[in-house]
Amino acid sequence: MVFGNKGERSGTGVAFTRDPSTGEVGLYGEFLADAQGEDVVAGIRTPEPVEAMQKQLPEAFEQLVETMRRLEEHYRDMQDIEFTVEDDRLYLLQTRSAKRTAAAALKAAVTMVEESLISREDAVARIDPGQLDQLLHPMIDPSAEYEVAAHGLNASPGAASGKVVLDADTAEERGSAGESVILVRWETTPDDIHGLLQAAGILTAHGGMTSHAAVVARGMGKPCVAGCDELTIDLDKRTITVGGREVRENEVLTIDGGNGSVIVGEVALVPPRINEDFKTILEWADAIRRLRVRANADTPEDAAKAREFGAEGIGLCRTEHMFMAEDRLPVVREMIMASGEDERRAALDKLLPHQQSDFEGIFEAMAGLPVTIRLLDPPLHEFLPPLEEATDDRMRARIRALQESNPMLGTRGCRLGLLWPEIYEMQVRAIIRAAAAVEERTGEAPLVEIMHPLVGFAEELHRLRAITVATAADETEHVEYLVGTMIELPRACIRADEIAVYADFFSFGTNDLTQTALGFSRDDAEGKFLTRYLEDGVLERNPFEILDVSGVGDLMRIAVERGRETKPELKLGICGEHGGEPSSVAFCHELGLDYVSCSPYRVPLARLAAAQAALVEQGAAYAATGG
Amino acid sequence: MVFGNKGERSGTGVAFTRDPSTGEVGLYGEFLADAQGEDVVAGIRTPEPVEAMQKQLPEAFEQLVETMRRLEEHYRDMQDIEFTVEDDRLYLLQTRSAKRTAAAALKAAVTMVEESLISREDAVARIDPGQLDQLLHPMIDPSAEYEVAAHGLNASPGAASGKVVLDADTAEERGSAGESVILVRWETTPDDIHGLLQAAGILTAHGGMTSHAAVVARGMGKPCVAGCDELTIDLDKRTITVGGREVRENEVLTIDGGNGSVIVGEVALVPPRINEDFKTILEWADAIRRLRVRANADTPEDAAKAREFGAEGIGLCRTEHMFMAEDRLPVVREMIMASGEDERRAALDKLLPHQQSDFEGIFEAMAGLPVTIRLLDPPLHEFLPPLEEATDDRMRARIRALQESNPMLGTRGCRLGLLWPEIYEMQVRAIIRAAAAVEERTGEAPLVEIMHPLVGFAEELHRLRAITVATAADETEHVEYLVGTMIELPRACIRADEIAVYADFFSFGTNDLTQTALGFSRDDAEGKFLTRYLEDGVLERNPFEILDVSGVGDLMRIAVERGRETKPELKLGICGEHGGEPSSVAFCHELGLDYVSCSPYRVPLARLAAAQAALVEQGAAYAATGG
Repeated sequence: MVFGNKGERSGTGVAFTRDPSTGEVGLYGEFLADAQGEDVVAGIRTPEPVEAMQKQLPEAFEQLVETMRRLEEHYRDMQDIEFTVEDDRLYLLQTRSAKRTAAAALKAAVTMVEESLISREDAVARIDPGQLDQLLHPMIDPSAEYEVAAHGLNASPGAASGKVVLDADTAEERGSAGESVILVRWETTPDDIHGLLQAAGILTAHGGMTSHAAVVARGMGKPCVAGCDELTIDLDKRTITVGGREVRENEVLTIDGGNGSVIVGEVALVPPRINEDFKTILEWADAIRRLRVRANADTPEDAAKAREFGAEGIGLCRTEHMFMAEDRLPVVREMIMASGEDERRAALDKLLPHQQSDFEGIFEAMAGLPVTIRLLDPPLHEFLPPLEEATDDRMRARIRALQESNPMLGTRGCRLGLLWPEIYEMQVRAIIRAAAAVEERTGEAPLVEIMHPLVGFAEELHRLRAITVATAADETEHVEYLVGTMIELPRACIRADEIAVYADFFSFGTNDLTQTALGFSRDDAEGKFLTRYLEDGVLERNPFEILDVSGVGDLMRIAVERGRETKPELKLGICGEHGGEPSSVAFCHELGLDYVSCSPYRVPLARLAAAQAALVEQGAAYAATGG
Repeated sequence: MVFGNKGERSGTGVAFTRDPSTGEVGLYGEFLADAQGEDVVAGIRTPEPVEAMQKQLPEAFEQLVETMRRLEEHYRDMQDIEFTVEDDRLYLLQTRSAKRTAAAALKAAVTMVEESLISREDAVARIDPGQLDQLLHPMIDPSAEYEVAAHGLNASPGAASGKVVLDADTAEERGSAGESVILVRWETTPDDIHGLLQAAGILTAHGGMTSHAAVVARGMGKPCVAGCDELTIDLDKRTITVGGREVRENEVLTIDGGNGSVIVGEVALVPPRINEDFKTILEWADAIRRLRVRANADTPEDAAKAREFGAEGIGLCRTEHMFMAEDRLPVVREMIMASGEDERRAALDKLLPHQQSDFEGIFEAMAGLPVTIRLLDPPLHEFLPPLEEATDDRMRARIRALQESNPMLGTRGCRLGLLWPEIYEMQVRAIIRAAAAVEERTGEAPLVEIMHPLVGFAEELHRLRAITVATAADETEHVEYLVGTMIELPRACIRADEIAVYADFFSFGTNDLTQTALGFSRDDAEGKFLTRYLEDGVLERNPFEILDVSGVGDLMRIAVERGRETKPELKLGICGEHGGEPSSVAFCHELGLDYVSCSPYRVPLARLAAAQAALVEQGAAYAATGG
């Protein structure tokens, strides 16, 4: 068929059965009278809204509306239709499922259920969880125009605009006064934490996806661009250069932590939105999924945010950020510098009330839901200043003594608790006291899970469990709690049978398990050889973002089998960043884990992904029964 | 029975059926006339040699000699007998297998076979391979008296006495002039390699069991005490202090790398000896064992030494030490500093003839036996000087760019070959040219095995194999060779099935596999948390010395099963330091490996341990058939 007739009773256009940007039902599209398809493509004339066709070609328009209805009913999905009209007769050129925004996808799915066009299961199955991420952080207005000055690592999603500040004190002062500031640093350290807390966003020149800035920002759900090579900082002149452009302190910068871009000047942002459609879909998802979804949260604020997003508990509460808070760090350093156990215990005694009040806040925010607290994990040198900032010879000597060639594989995790049991004792005491206090105050007992990190040998957990139980019993017999371990070393997977003897639960720490199983230090891989591997196609996916199912996943499978062989009722979860990544969530479902835990902002994605995994399984079961 | 009579016809003593220090047949022991057992113990009178009894108590003496003969025949082992005589009558108080030196154990075993008292298998089975280690290195004369001034890590076995020198240039100059010198350094770097080569022993204040000094020294079979905390060095005053004692340059120091002791002054040493008895036992062992034994050797000299100790090939020839030699390091640095591939290739072209002549020397020394060459493994920053010694800004920038948080898990191993294929191409070219030249010259084709380190994904080896094959084919079609990989990452064990598709052989690198599976950086563990774990009994054995059979070993088992599932004829070996440790060798036998590879000095131990493992298996099989 040739559409050669450009006569009066002809035209061509594109129509959507629903609005592709909002999902609203209606007629959306474009129409060009007296034209062929190529005229639209060539853009020589501006098309009119498709409604204009009603007056010009009423008969063909009626055919179009009827056809659209039938097509959507047939395909049970929003359609994007190309058509042409010749002598009042409608010809369809193409129809396909329409590309749409996340918001539109949600709206369309919900209304199609209301229209009985699709089932709730269909609605849940067809939302792309990855696409939803854009709804969960402030983002740059899609209609804004701007020029990207430089790129760094997309260390923590979301966008932020604010005035450049070059030190944490200023960031804290002006941020807490309500100004929007971007903290720009060569790299950040625990000393900067008060500034990070008050900044709208963080930009660093140095460090990878697990650098201090990146980890803290992700924990806070705060935008961060890290390791930006094209950034230089001149602290004397109080200026920075970004991709060659000079920017003075107090001038405005915009960063997008979702893609790593840095923009000079202000750019319009749009806020995150969990609208009614999103809520509806998530409620349907909750009815379908088997996996429970928890959040990684270290503060009462994060815990509240997580709950708002539907988290069913905390799967990972890291205690090191509490140690890094500005008012505690001097005491933590006292503890590290202590010349003996007595001095160390004296410093720990000062930390105890702080820890207790941290835990009380978190237990209250998570009332009725389980909270897994991980005891201190990072190597102690992370709490000391860099060597050149040491205040005296004694500190210099201590910093040198604690230096490590490969800190990732050094004196950290439960090794700390075995070398200096008084540290873990203080933490257990704080947890138990907090639980007792909250129960006393609210009448409801918190569901406490105490987690020991980096266990590789059953004997480690055997001893740590004994310390935990003895310390708790010394406080009170009335608080119930579980004792478990992270599974984040290949050896722990292999000997999960032995470790399970002393564990009430396992939580897979897939960040570190990926690092050790693959021999990839994330800090040294991303931006370096791993980037080349992905560019050259040696690897298809970044194993730190999407779980390496055939390698790390197989180690997890071995751990699940062997752990449950010893203890069939063993509770199993995952608290690495993969816990919020849809395909990894699907794998956790297949593996039979009890829950996934991810950052608060990813909880909705994980709820949806878990439901989709359950639907896939049901589909497979249905197919297997010949249905 | 009470031995109360201290009359004339009484006495007491101890007798050995053979000399416990040499194993010579004869009558050895002590006798005290007119005495009870307690008199000997109390030491109030000096006993006489046991022969003295013949005159004093001829009848009892005859009884003793006859009883000793019968006891040794009955127990089929050298006896240590306590006796007493009352009224001319001999009473035995105790008999047991005699404690003896390694030399005596060998002599006794060989002569008992000659006397048809035991079988060759019995002889092989009863030698403790661990004890033999003392025969394979110079050691401090057991009769010497001395005071240990300080302790460090027993980084490389053997003892050495020599004059203290504080820099590598002096060590080279005076060492090559025939003086015995001990190189004392804070730590060593590749820049010191010429000094290490000429020193009799190495002592460092800093660094662990895998520090540069420790690794190089073990490779050279040279005594080294590393990480000696009680050592300080004053380069201005040209003095050191050891455990508080000041020692000037040129004064004599003795170190024992077998136990980590440092002694001020000279101590008498005894040389290593593989005597006839040792050779005989090893020949019998060779006839029994199934595992082949290779050596880790990087130079023709090491290869020759390995062959002398009975190595049946080289299981690990590291190429990085060739890169570190003094005349090559400047060219290696040119290569690292190159601004592009062309410049890099130009530097590599200069290295190629050096590499080729290295390989020719090794192939000739190992004529008729397989040689496994591992392509470049360490991160490139190991070849650059420390930041403060950089000569210009460009080098400083390069050193900074190559810095890593966890070098153990960074850009090293086959990642180098994938990022800069020209490096591995040069090495393959050098190997193939060397093999062709040696075959041309000697008429015998070397058995070449090219090994890619740190593979974790099949796709890595897929590409590296292609590069290897293409480069070799570009040189000649006439040289035969195998292409294989180290298995030293947990992921490589788990996905051995996929990796085996591209591998002719696997060689387990159990040093790195232990580091990654356990999350133990050896440098950061030994002397720190691992030492505490061993002291406190969290671990019973150092997993870097004795293979962690239930963890690392189980990963190896998975790799063997999955690798051979893909390729039943896959050749399997081990080249970690465990390859020379007796119980680990036994595990490798059980696992069905084809060979173990260890340092040249441990080859005799491995031969014996392999035979003992075969005997245990035969014993088990015999027992299973109801024998």
